[in-house]
Amino acid sequence: MSIDPADPRPLRVLFAGQSERWEEYETPLSAAFARHGLEVELDTEFPPETVDYIITAPNGTVQDFTPYTKAKAVLNLWAGVEGIIGNETLTQPLCRMIETGLTQGMVEWVTGHVLRHHLGLDRDITRDQPVWDFRVPPLATDRKVTILGMGELGQACALALAGLGFDVAGWSRSEKRVPGVECLSGEAGLTAAMNRAEILVLLLPLTPATRHLIDVATLARLPKGAVILNPGRGLLIDDDALLAALDAGHIAHATLDVFAVEPLPEGHPYWAHPSVTVTPHIASSTRPGTSSESIAENIRRCEAGEPLIGLVDRGRGY
Amino acid sequence: MSIDPADPRPLRVLFAGQSERWEEYETPLSAAFARHGLEVELDTEFPPETVDYIITAPNGTVQDFTPYTKAKAVLNLWAGVEGIIGNETLTQPLCRMIETGLTQGMVEWVTGHVLRHHLGLDRDITRDQPVWDFRVPPLATDRKVTILGMGELGQACALALAGLGFDVAGWSRSEKRVPGVECLSGEAGLTAAMNRAEILVLLLPLTPATRHLIDVATLARLPKGAVILNPGRGLLIDDDALLAALDAGHIAHATLDVFAVEPLPEGHPYWAHPSVTVTPHIASSTRPGTSSESIAENIRRCEAGEPLIGLVDRGRGY
Repeated sequence: MSIDPADPRPLRVLFAGQSERWEEYETPLSAAFARHGLEVELDTEFPPETVDYIITAPNGTVQDFTPYTKAKAVLNLWAGVEGIIGNETLTQPLCRMIETGLTQGMVEWVTGHVLRHHLGLDRDITRDQPVWDFRVPPLATDRKVTILGMGELGQACALALAGLGFDVAGWSRSEKRVPGVECLSGEAGLTAAMNRAEILVLLLPLTPATRHLIDVATLARLPKGAVILNPGRGLLIDDDALLAALDAGHIAHATLDVFAVEPLPEGHPYWAHPSVTVTPHIASSTRPGTSSESIAENIRRCEAGEPLIGLVDRGRGY
Repeated sequence: MSIDPADPRPLRVLFAGQSERWEEYETPLSAAFARHGLEVELDTEFPPETVDYIITAPNGTVQDFTPYTKAKAVLNLWAGVEGIIGNETLTQPLCRMIETGLTQGMVEWVTGHVLRHHLGLDRDITRDQPVWDFRVPPLATDRKVTILGMGELGQACALALAGLGFDVAGWSRSEKRVPGVECLSGEAGLTAAMNRAEILVLLLPLTPATRHLIDVATLARLPKGAVILNPGRGLLIDDDALLAALDAGHIAHATLDVFAVEPLPEGHPYWAHPSVTVTPHIASSTRPGTSSESIAENIRRCEAGEPLIGLVDRGRGY
């Protein structure tokens, strides 16, 4: 398959993700291309001007996209593109990763930690005395969860939590409609979303507008004793403001998967804070099997003249 | 409403649950009776021969049911009836509790603890060193969960877990059909159910046939590293056999909500065992609001000549 019928070369797809990942991606990518009927040469090196598609990652092997004059799209292996969107040499259409494994993993992490805090599991897990402290937790129907960010991941988490009976609201930049979920947007919507949140889940993309969205002012809007889960992006949170709110007891707990600097530096106060749980950026990871499928489907779409899935709007930032 | 049109007295309903619970039940029961169009006198004492229905619990105020000659049904506040079924003075129809709050609470406890073990949350919750140990957990689709007992509670948990993507099998005495769940029954089915169980959930009723079902022989059938959740009944498990399997490392963890003796005695080895989590019989509790609704509905059905919900089969034991 080729755009130029006079030149029936196979498509050249450059794998420019981290070199360490090549081994686990080569087979599933080749299999996915075959399943999608694409004739592809896949490798980690080609003369740049001959490349049709680039599979990339912010920590990948290509940083200067200028010589890839023929590339029809750059396909990011990560859902987050803030580490690549500022690259001025990248003028080709850029897609963020949307794939079922990434979404499913996020739903599991979010649902697991929401239930953990809802049921108060930490008390049982860490109990070191033989104390039979009978207390019946409220039902999910009486627990208000707010999700900030109602994109692919936020909506999937909202639906899973609503399915378990939680009282879920979702806030997003543009208005959404999700069955069983109270959808809020805009400035007034944000205030309402924060005011009600017993458990707050951050799934916003990182943009100039969302950087440090969780600061002194927005934290003050949360009800006393609220819990924060951040599987989104570290810089959504002003860390000093969160630490102060935790120390004051206004926020009961924060479970954080992402950080301004990763891995989280050894001396960072989050590590030792009794009201903080650190998970090492595992809430959701791109899996080779399912993400290869998404990449192959996007190349098929592009070749067929159909719109790309996850195409990044550079003005919006994601 | 009355069975004898010549004697239009209101129905007499005796609350014979624990005296401490009367205060929280009086209002919701009265409201539920009114909603169901029942004219009822509700109290904690009546001349026994005048009582139409008895609301009871194994630890309740009536132990001799002989004088309640007119009682049309005995309605248990608990889902489990093994503490009351052996009472030979209880010859009236006996119903176990089936109510949405009980079911919903159980689904939340089971789903929360399944996700906790699936995601390995304990490692993150109890970590006391700044160690960024990145490991991506498998997806739920690659995690096999087995539920023993596919009654009201077992089926609800199976559906919730299957809805999150888990690979769920359910085993029961009689064959069931539940969409998205592999349904097993009989002796051969039990072996298959145990062999596949990375996470085993016990939701069987306690009967002579299920007492110590989890013993040396059945534990040996579980794959190495399996996790056991018991929100069912304490005596389903042979405690010595489980402790030996935990010590040998064959079973990785047991999270137990119910015990042969409750509260779990201070010196019991479960309290201090590093691979055991004790929760104080909170997996599911009858809630006054929702259970009053179920009681009122059952009385309405009985008065209308419709079959009772949750009617206990004494031969079967539940």
